[in-house]
Amino acid sequence: METSESSHRPIGVFDSGIGGLTVLRALSRAMPGESFVYLGDVARLPYGTKSKSVVESYVRRCVDFLARQNVRMVVIACNTATAMALEEMRAQKELPIYGVIEPGVQTALRHFRGGKFLVLATQSTVKSEAYLKEFRRQNPKACVDQIACPLLVPLAEEGWFDHPVTVSVIRNYLKDVKIGDYDAVVLGCTHYPLLEPSFRQVVGDAVPLVHSGEALAAQISGGKFAKADAILTFFSTDPIDGTIPIISRLFDGPISFDRVDL
Amino acid sequence: METSESSHRPIGVFDSGIGGLTVLRALSRAMPGESFVYLGDVARLPYGTKSKSVVESYVRRCVDFLARQNVRMVVIACNTATAMALEEMRAQKELPIYGVIEPGVQTALRHFRGGKFLVLATQSTVKSEAYLKEFRRQNPKACVDQIACPLLVPLAEEGWFDHPVTVSVIRNYLKDVKIGDYDAVVLGCTHYPLLEPSFRQVVGDAVPLVHSGEALAAQISGGKFAKADAILTFFSTDPIDGTIPIISRLFDGPISFDRVDL
Repeated sequence: METSESSHRPIGVFDSGIGGLTVLRALSRAMPGESFVYLGDVARLPYGTKSKSVVESYVRRCVDFLARQNVRMVVIACNTATAMALEEMRAQKELPIYGVIEPGVQTALRHFRGGKFLVLATQSTVKSEAYLKEFRRQNPKACVDQIACPLLVPLAEEGWFDHPVTVSVIRNYLKDVKIGDYDAVVLGCTHYPLLEPSFRQVVGDAVPLVHSGEALAAQISGGKFAKADAILTFFSTDPIDGTIPIISRLFDGPISFDRVDL
Repeated sequence: METSESSHRPIGVFDSGIGGLTVLRALSRAMPGESFVYLGDVARLPYGTKSKSVVESYVRRCVDFLARQNVRMVVIACNTATAMALEEMRAQKELPIYGVIEPGVQTALRHFRGGKFLVLATQSTVKSEAYLKEFRRQNPKACVDQIACPLLVPLAEEGWFDHPVTVSVIRNYLKDVKIGDYDAVVLGCTHYPLLEPSFRQVVGDAVPLVHSGEALAAQISGGKFAKADAILTFFSTDPIDGTIPIISRLFDGPISFDRVDL
C-alpha cells in the first residue's frame, strides 16, 4: 500500500476539539511506533452546530496546515467534518484523506441481524444524512434511525464522562426509541466514546456501541507499521492547558505542544 | 446626551449567539420606537471557552461590521466579549461602546445587605475576573464568589429553558454554596436569563436573579427615545433558521434577516 520511504512521514489527524483524541488513541494503539501530528481546532469549536460552507472552510485550513507539516495522509477525526467536507477535500487535495463515517458503518454492519441501526450524532451530521447514504452504499437492506444529541459534546468537553447529568441527557435523547430493536448503536461523533460509561447505564450491555477508531486504524495501516520511534506533535488553535494531562495519558511516546493561528 | 440627528441612527447590538437577544429584548422594551441592527456571530459560537486574543479578534470584526451599518453606538451583548475586549474596543474606536458587566454589577449592588454576591458565568468570564474588578470599583465592600457554568449556554441554545436536566445541571454547579448567604445572584452570561424558570426551581424566590438588560437600557437611553418607526435588521454569520421564530416573538416592528461573512 505504501512505500517504505513515505511511511516514515507522520500521520496527520485533526478535530475541532478533544473528540478526535479517541481516534488518535485507537490509531496509536493499533499502530505502535507510528508518529502523528494532531491539530485541535479548538478556536472554532464546535463544528457540529455550523453550516456546510463554514465547516468546509475550516477543514480546508486544517488540511492545508497538516500538509505543510509534511504528513503522509490526513485523518479527519470528526464526524461533522467528514460528513460535510470529506468528498470536497478528496477531490481537491493530492494527499490521501480518510474520514470516520465509512469505517464506523463498516463496523456496525458486522453486527447485522434484524437490520435496524441507530446513529447518534451532532445536528450537522444528522442533517447531512452522510450516515444514511453510507449505510445505503454498503448495505441497502440496513434501516437506519438518527438522533441529534447536541448537548453531548459540551458534556464531554466538561469532563462529565460518567455523571448522573450525562446519563439523564442520554436517557432524554433516547426516550422515544426502543433500544433493544437495534443491531448496534453508532456513536457518530468522536466525542461520544468518552461518555461510554454513561451510555452503558442507559443502553445496557446487550446492544453494541460502535465507534470508528479501530476500524479506521485497520483500514489505514493495512497491517503494516512504521519502525521509527513514535512522536506526537500536538498543535491547537487556542490554549488547551486543561487538556494536556488527558492527552499525555493517551500517548506513550514524547509529545510536543504548540499554538498555531489559522 | 445625544443630538436629535444622531439619534435617528440605529443601535448596534451583537453576541455570539442567541444570548444577546435577552439584552435586545430589554433594550427594545425600554426604548420603544428605537431601531436596532443585531449581529449574531453564530459561526464562531461559543466565545465563552476561547482565549482573550481569539475573542478580541472576533469582537473587533463585529464592531467594525456594525460601524459600517452606520449605527450610532454598539452594545456588546455578551459578558465574555465585554470581559475580554470592551476596554480595548473603547480605546481603539470612536463609536460609543457599551458592555453588560458594569450595569449588571450596578443592579446587583442595589440589593446590598450582607455584602455577599454570587456571579455565574462562562469559563472565560470567570477567568478574566472582570466581575471581581467591577464590583471592587463600584463598591470595595462587596465580597464576590464566582462559579463557571459551561453547560448552561448549550442548554439554552438547545432550548431546554425549563427542563429537569437544566435544573440538575444548575443544582450541580451550585452544590457547594449556600444560596441564602448571597444578596443577589448575577446571571453573568446573556444566555442565562433564558433559563430563569430552571434557576427559580433551584434558587427559590428569596434571592434576586440579576441580569444587565434593563440597567443597560436605562443607561443608554438616558430617558430619551427616538421617534422613528422601529426596525430590526438582523445579521448572522451562519444560518439561524430555527431561531427566527424566537427572534420574531421578541420584537414588535418589522425584521429583516441577512447572512454575512466576517
